[in-house]
Amino acid sequence: MPDKRAKQNWKETLYEIIFEAETFWGKTFDVVLLIAILLSVLVVTLESVESIRNDFGMHLYIIEWIFTIFFTIEYIIRIIIVRRSWRYIRSFFGIVDLLSIIPTYLSIFITGAQSLLIVRSIRLLRVFRVLKMVRFLGEASQLTTALKASRAKITVFIGGVFAMTVIMGTLMYMIEGAENGFTSIPRSIYWAVVTLTTVGYGDIAPQTALGQGLATFIMILGYGIIAVPTGIVTAEMTQNRMITKPTAKNCPNCNRHGHDEEARFCKFCGEKL
Amino acid sequence: MPDKRAKQNWKETLYEIIFEAETFWGKTFDVVLLIAILLSVLVVTLESVESIRNDFGMHLYIIEWIFTIFFTIEYIIRIIIVRRSWRYIRSFFGIVDLLSIIPTYLSIFITGAQSLLIVRSIRLLRVFRVLKMVRFLGEASQLTTALKASRAKITVFIGGVFAMTVIMGTLMYMIEGAENGFTSIPRSIYWAVVTLTTVGYGDIAPQTALGQGLATFIMILGYGIIAVPTGIVTAEMTQNRMITKPTAKNCPNCNRHGHDEEARFCKFCGEKL
Amino acid sequence: MPDKRAKQNWKETLYEIIFEAETFWGKTFDVVLLIAILLSVLVVTLESVESIRNDFGMHLYIIEWIFTIFFTIEYIIRIIIVRRSWRYIRSFFGIVDLLSIIPTYLSIFITGAQSLLIVRSIRLLRVFRVLKMVRFLGEASQLTTALKASRAKITVFIGGVFAMTVIMGTLMYMIEGAENGFTSIPRSIYWAVVTLTTVGYGDIAPQTALGQGLATFIMILGYGIIAVPTGIVTAEMTQNRMITKPTAKNCPNCNRHGHDEEARFCKFCGEKL
Amino acid sequence: MPDKRAKQNWKETLYEIIFEAETFWGKTFDVVLLIAILLSVLVVTLESVESIRNDFGMHLYIIEWIFTIFFTIEYIIRIIIVRRSWRYIRSFFGIVDLLSIIPTYLSIFITGAQSLLIVRSIRLLRVFRVLKMVRFLGEASQLTTALKASRAKITVFIGGVFAMTVIMGTLMYMIEGAENGFTSIPRSIYWAVVTLTTVGYGDIAPQTALGQGLATFIMILGYGIIAVPTGIVTAEMTQNRMITKPTAKNCPNCNRHGHDEEARFCKFCGEKL
Repeated sequence: MPDKRAKQNWKETLYEIIFEAETFWGKTFDVVLLIAILLSVLVVTLESVESIRNDFGMHLYIIEWIFTIFFTIEYIIRIIIVRRSWRYIRSFFGIVDLLSIIPTYLSIFITGAQSLLIVRSIRLLRVFRVLKMVRFLGEASQLTTALKASRAKITVFIGGVFAMTVIMGTLMYMIEGAENGFTSIPRSIYWAVVTLTTVGYGDIAPQTALGQGLATFIMILGYGIIAVPTGIVTAEMTQNRMITKPTAKNCPNCNRHGHDEEARFCKFCGEKL
Repeated sequence: MPDKRAKQNWKETLYEIIFEAETFWGKTFDVVLLIAILLSVLVVTLESVESIRNDFGMHLYIIEWIFTIFFTIEYIIRIIIVRRSWRYIRSFFGIVDLLSIIPTYLSIFITGAQSLLIVRSIRLLRVFRVLKMVRFLGEASQLTTALKASRAKITVFIGGVFAMTVIMGTLMYMIEGAENGFTSIPRSIYWAVVTLTTVGYGDIAPQTALGQGLATFIMILGYGIIAVPTGIVTAEMTQNRMITKPTAKNCPNCNRHGHDEEARFCKFCGEKL
Repeated sequence: MPDKRAKQNWKETLYEIIFEAETFWGKTFDVVLLIAILLSVLVVTLESVESIRNDFGMHLYIIEWIFTIFFTIEYIIRIIIVRRSWRYIRSFFGIVDLLSIIPTYLSIFITGAQSLLIVRSIRLLRVFRVLKMVRFLGEASQLTTALKASRAKITVFIGGVFAMTVIMGTLMYMIEGAENGFTSIPRSIYWAVVTLTTVGYGDIAPQTALGQGLATFIMILGYGIIAVPTGIVTAEMTQNRMITKPTAKNCPNCNRHGHDEEARFCKFCGEKL
Repeated sequence: MPDKRAKQNWKETLYEIIFEAETFWGKTFDVVLLIAILLSVLVVTLESVESIRNDFGMHLYIIEWIFTIFFTIEYIIRIIIVRRSWRYIRSFFGIVDLLSIIPTYLSIFITGAQSLLIVRSIRLLRVFRVLKMVRFLGEASQLTTALKASRAKITVFIGGVFAMTVIMGTLMYMIEGAENGFTSIPRSIYWAVVTLTTVGYGDIAPQTALGQGLATFIMILGYGIIAVPTGIVTAEMTQNRMITKPTAKNCPNCNRHGHDEEARFCKFCGEKL
């Protein structure tokens, strides 16, 4: 009985360290894991550079195996510890955790399978988890709230931008034609997006006077409508702040509100809050 | 008589489905239509890619005819059902609806007429209609209100940007000249717009030290003045929210709305809310 | 005596038409002048295109002379009518008005002098004057107020951006060197501005790994700090609105303010405003 | 004794001139120094241009020595005058001040050491000090406060952008491959940053249909998420203004500030304002 409880406690402690991040060890584990992910991504990244692969290929190969074994152990512990193992395995991060160790093992049988290790970079998304902890969810959730609240408006906006780029792209395909690089409508739509978002690679660029005129129009449009998503998010954030901050306290004497967080006396009648 | 009413009802029901979007079937029809438009645009788009046209030309041709017939039937029903047929035919969407079916029929007699089918992509603007429905007009109209309210300021802004690009373009034409790609003033104005909007294709780029100096100035200008439209729209939106939020309360006396959250008396007639 | 007064009146009327824009004729004159300027700029612009000059050179030459004579008459009338002629002649617009007619006359003696006519495009700045009238100064002055109020902050910002581009440009000159297109420090600074403002021509682009790393840093920096001028202008505009709009009216009964422009009754106590 | 005090005073006056900027002479010294730094940076900059070096090399060399001697004297005076010399020498600006004079002396023994003079451009950061003075710290500190307050949110944002570019870059490396310019993962990440920040050099650009599709997605993403930092900073600034504006009033009892315009009683101690 006491043995079982001890085991339970040991399991719970490990659970707190690996899955939660409020305690010191929990946070430490998350940070160490994040650094390990960063380093392993760096190794995969460097391995793709030919000159480095030629010189340090063997070293990188060994480091890769060390990380893979570490991540495998982590994955197995996660499955053992978590209450609903199956739910974790099928969750987004569960699948990513599995996919980020498989390629190394596969590479024993199949050459080239290692390049699939890049899946590991998706684990970098854990950065959000660690950052979240640091600031106790506040900042990140404020961002999320603002984005969620303006989801509908952003959908309308992206829908409109999409319709616009299709129409503009098709028009440019008609005007410029294949001889000026606008070889097909999808490619012209790609150009329209490149232009509207002010990226402007220059791999495809209008050559005719009419095409350049239309391009001018699209550019000014793109330059102007960037104000729309910015306006949406900013308005949402500004309001968020105003609501979440000072309206909470009311004066017990004159009952007026609008007091600052730090206020200890009513600014209208001087009554203690 | 009952027969006539039944016919009337049948006509009205169809009208509601096709022209309105508040009911379930009305919304369903709009969504189906939008998907059909999207697919038909996709077909026209894919047909412009040479390799796809060579392999699947026949399939695409058949699908195109199916969509054309579907849209033709839809167009005819719209004319029959609507009360003022002539007004619909002359309306913007009426003309677009007609233009998006004609090219296929023309292609029987004239080869190449099919490429005019891209007109169909304009029908994608219906996306706004469907999206509008989903959120009950609120979000989209808030955007429109903000844009309308800042129309005057945006006109001043675009006028100023236009004058600036003409002057900058002409200066660059003088400084760089035809040998560096600035072959004419319109082309130089095109370059000025490309630069000011931070698109920066790089198909034309200043080569002389003086030209690069002026370009530097234009870029920093463009980088800075993007704040202006953003500021305009954002300020409008932030205020909008503050005004439009509390529309829930209506005055029991004069029935007008637009009262602030804190208001206890109607601001129009003085009645207690 | 009456003759003199009549002359005075005639002069005053003309003054109102040409220099002011509040009356109907004053506004009409400004609009006609603006269209004339636009057309004359268009003519100069088109003349710079070689193919058009070859085909319609003679026509453009004649139209140019017509505009020049019209602008000459306008300039002379302005000098006669205005009270302090010398002050007008030395003013910014006075000099521009003169410079925009001289080149045509010079072209009789000196070939090529016509290209100086582009000075005329500066007259396009009059567009601000006409636009201002249309909206009765309100919108434009709101923009100006916002920009003026944030002048100090914008100076700090531009100073910082300048120092940053010099440092970044010099670093890149050290890292990449002449063989990768960074032939001198000024050219590298030019590249830094092109990158920081997110224009990105691509005529100069880092080739070494270290250079691309630094470029990555500059790009993210530029992407982030664009938020600063936008934030400055927006905050100024949002506040402007809040101050200039509803605080004017106070309730005569309870003396509280914050009423909307349209409010006719106090929203707190119901008293007539 | 009086001699010592006089010496003390002389030292203090010099200290005020060189290290502080509130007095007339202190500000004048800072402005003169800034101009000297600007000119000396200009000289180093021009020397890097080959054609100028060939023609005016000797002149630039002499001017460089004059500036170096001036800065050396300034550096020595700073060490003598400041109370804690060692602290100044080890401070950031102390090291920069030293590094910006050493290269010229080194160039006597080692050819090419002059190019290290570019370190001097870091001294341009003093521009902030002078600007700060002009506006009495207000504006610049408002900017700093806004940036500091939103530091956590900006970290989350940059972390997210970083994770995104790594994932996108790796995906593009898989899709496009070395034959289309995506020769390694780091290079692909560099491309992803170039695209997401809307810089778009065009030195690397997707060639395959799938790659262009993903690029389209990244561009629209980058175009949209620029709203996030802008929203963060703007919301912070808008609120800042509302809080920091009314600092004029101080409580006569507890002497604390930060009261709102409308406040009639101190919010900290309840004393009447």
